Amino acid sequence: TQNYRITLLPGDGIGPEIIAVAVDVLKLVGQQLDIGFEFQEALMGGAAIDATGNPLPEETLEKCRNCDAVLLAAIGGYKWDNLPREQRPETGLLGLRAGLGLFANLRPATILPQLVDASSLKREVVEGVDIMVIRELTGGIYFGKPKGIFETETGEKRGVNTMAYTESEIDRIGRVAFETARKRGKRLCSVDKANVLDVSQLWRDRIIALSSEYPDVELSHLYVDNAAMQLIRWPKQFDTIVTGNLFGDILSDAAAMLTGSIGMLPSASLGASGPGVFEPVHGSAPDIAGQDKANPIAQVLSAAMMLRYALNQPEAANKIEQAVVEVLDRGYRTGDIMSEGMKLVGCRAMGNALIEVL
Amino acid sequence: TQNYRITLLPGDGIGPEIIAVAVDVLKLVGQQLDIGFEFQEALMGGAAIDATGNPLPEETLEKCRNCDAVLLAAIGGYKWDNLPREQRPETGLLGLRAGLGLFANLRPATILPQLVDASSLKREVVEGVDIMVIRELTGGIYFGKPKGIFETETGEKRGVNTMAYTESEIDRIGRVAFETARKRGKRLCSVDKANVLDVSQLWRDRIIALSSEYPDVELSHLYVDNAAMQLIRWPKQFDTIVTGNLFGDILSDAAAMLTGSIGMLPSASLGASGPGVFEPVHGSAPDIAGQDKANPIAQVLSAAMMLRYALNQPEAANKIEQAVVEVLDRGYRTGDIMSEGMKLVGCRAMGNALIEVL
Ligand SMILES: CC(C)[C@H](C(=O)O)[C@@H](O)C(=O)O
Ligand SMILES: CC(C)[C@H](C(=O)O)[C@@H](O)C(=O)O
Repeated sequence: TQNYRITLLPGDGIGPEIIAVAVDVLKLVGQQLDIGFEFQEALMGGAAIDATGNPLPEETLEKCRNCDAVLLAAIGGYKWDNLPREQRPETGLLGLRAGLGLFANLRPATILPQLVDASSLKREVVEGVDIMVIRELTGGIYFGKPKGIFETETGEKRGVNTMAYTESEIDRIGRVAFETARKRGKRLCSVDKANVLDVSQLWRDRIIALSSEYPDVELSHLYVDNAAMQLIRWPKQFDTIVTGNLFGDILSDAAAMLTGSIGMLPSASLGASGPGVFEPVHGSAPDIAGQDKANPIAQVLSAAMMLRYALNQPEAANKIEQAVVEVLDRGYRTGDIMSEGMKLVGCRAMGNALIEVL
Repeated sequence: TQNYRITLLPGDGIGPEIIAVAVDVLKLVGQQLDIGFEFQEALMGGAAIDATGNPLPEETLEKCRNCDAVLLAAIGGYKWDNLPREQRPETGLLGLRAGLGLFANLRPATILPQLVDASSLKREVVEGVDIMVIRELTGGIYFGKPKGIFETETGEKRGVNTMAYTESEIDRIGRVAFETARKRGKRLCSVDKANVLDVSQLWRDRIIALSSEYPDVELSHLYVDNAAMQLIRWPKQFDTIVTGNLFGDILSDAAAMLTGSIGMLPSASLGASGPGVFEPVHGSAPDIAGQDKANPIAQVLSAAMMLRYALNQPEAANKIEQAVVEVLDRGYRTGDIMSEGMKLVGCRAMGNALIEVL
């Protein structure tokens, strides 16, 4: 038996409910395929603030370092929104990314045939969309210095952040992107703002330089404003997209929303070595927390991504992904993806349906 | 007779064709309403690079300073894409914005009932969308310093740009936004990334401080990633949006594309005093330049915006806007907005249809 140690970060809001479903699914698939999981829980986000005053306690980071993969649910909520930024749940997330060196964020935006009508876009525009957004996650304006609010000579305040990338930072995310595109549709679109930003000019130059090592991947470039437009106009033109931290934040969310079902979308954050973090694209949805209404599927598919990318267990990953398709085919829907004629279920019942199918 | 001096910047690509239509329309409406126009042309963008080596010759900036309003068509094209950034058409545009102090960019995204089907979004999602995006245009990461590509201690290159706003920069765009919202649906959504960026934190603090002067305007806040999602999910939730230069670049284009007819959308760039610049949202479309295929309506509506915002001639602006609705009702369509059963016309024929209606 292969044995894996998984750190669970249930976080806030609907987090505990959806991660419970993912754990049940993992346990069952593990029994079936003779894969052992040892789960250890840790505090993060608002839950950690309430218990320790720190959104990412050192103990949590230690547990995340000492495991094979991290399964994160969601963090944040109104309750902590007005704390100073250093004490906010989001700051814990940024600390986790930096602490584990998770420079590559993989965000698939795919749409299952059963859910096409959930999209705000026309059926013919979104049917078959299958985009992978690769976002740089530990650089750019999220971490650049100088940053802060300073006083100018005239005595007024000036807020400052720095968007910066070095060549090696661009190269390492660029390689992940070319490798990923190679395993998909072999088309990579790099998004920047090179007509205005120096940092984007360096980005573009390096991506072009790298492309000579990947002659089988077709490279194109878009300015970020145009990329936002093209995603809305005709998303099927995209296969793999690579971009910096801030542009990736915006575009991966836009791409996710095109599908109309962000309750379905997982993500992976990977480093050069060490454990990756797997989490849903959606947030902690405090408004429906504790009401057994959440859609656990993005969390379950995050567990599948973990099996595929971190644990090299593609068979188990496939099994889970097929089970998700099967429960949808059987008509089960949580509230966020409900449509006429389908069976409305809660979070736990959706979990049970998955278990049944498996 | 009121007499206005208008500087025309035809620019590149389809620019000369569409601006010719707008000039014809202005002349006719001027005759009808006893408004005099004196037009002076100047070079900008690629056309200026070819003639003088400079995308914004000093003479052009002078002409723009000495007039009542500037009507710009579009600039740029493949031909100049590989020049160093300082010599590119876009740099001329940034120079014009800075040179005239055009800190407020107003970008309406509206959809005419006749063109709802041109959108990639479902009819019920976009029908009646009427959003005004107010983008700060002379600050933020577009102009912040330090900027450039520097060498690090380890000898590799590092690209750097600075996103910065001072309190007074935020206040002046904030005021424009609150005033604009007040004249519209009285709802203002400020977009930032205050959960990560210090500059956004200052932005949010100032916008909140200002809001006490505008108790009749309902203020809300969204993070930029969520704003991109909400625009796609349910755009009708928005009335007026205010945001910084970079976020505004992305979101105003996304909002425009929701309508499916960016060939219809004008924009205004205004300063504290002095002439404003009025231009279509779309680009110079070099692929169809010189073929009499362009849609001149965004340019014509930019002239209407000029009449309303710069020249205080609302009657003339209304007349033009009504004429646009009327030609669409009569079935005239350029290629970009063509649909079944309509009359396909070229740029000039669309202009003639407008003249006829007027
Ligand atoms: C919560 C926030 C800091 C985070 C980000 O901006 O990266 C989130 O939006 C995301 O995309 O994971
Ligand atoms: C051409 C470019 C410099 C410009 C910008 O980024 O501001 C354009 O995208 C716009 O929105 O007017």
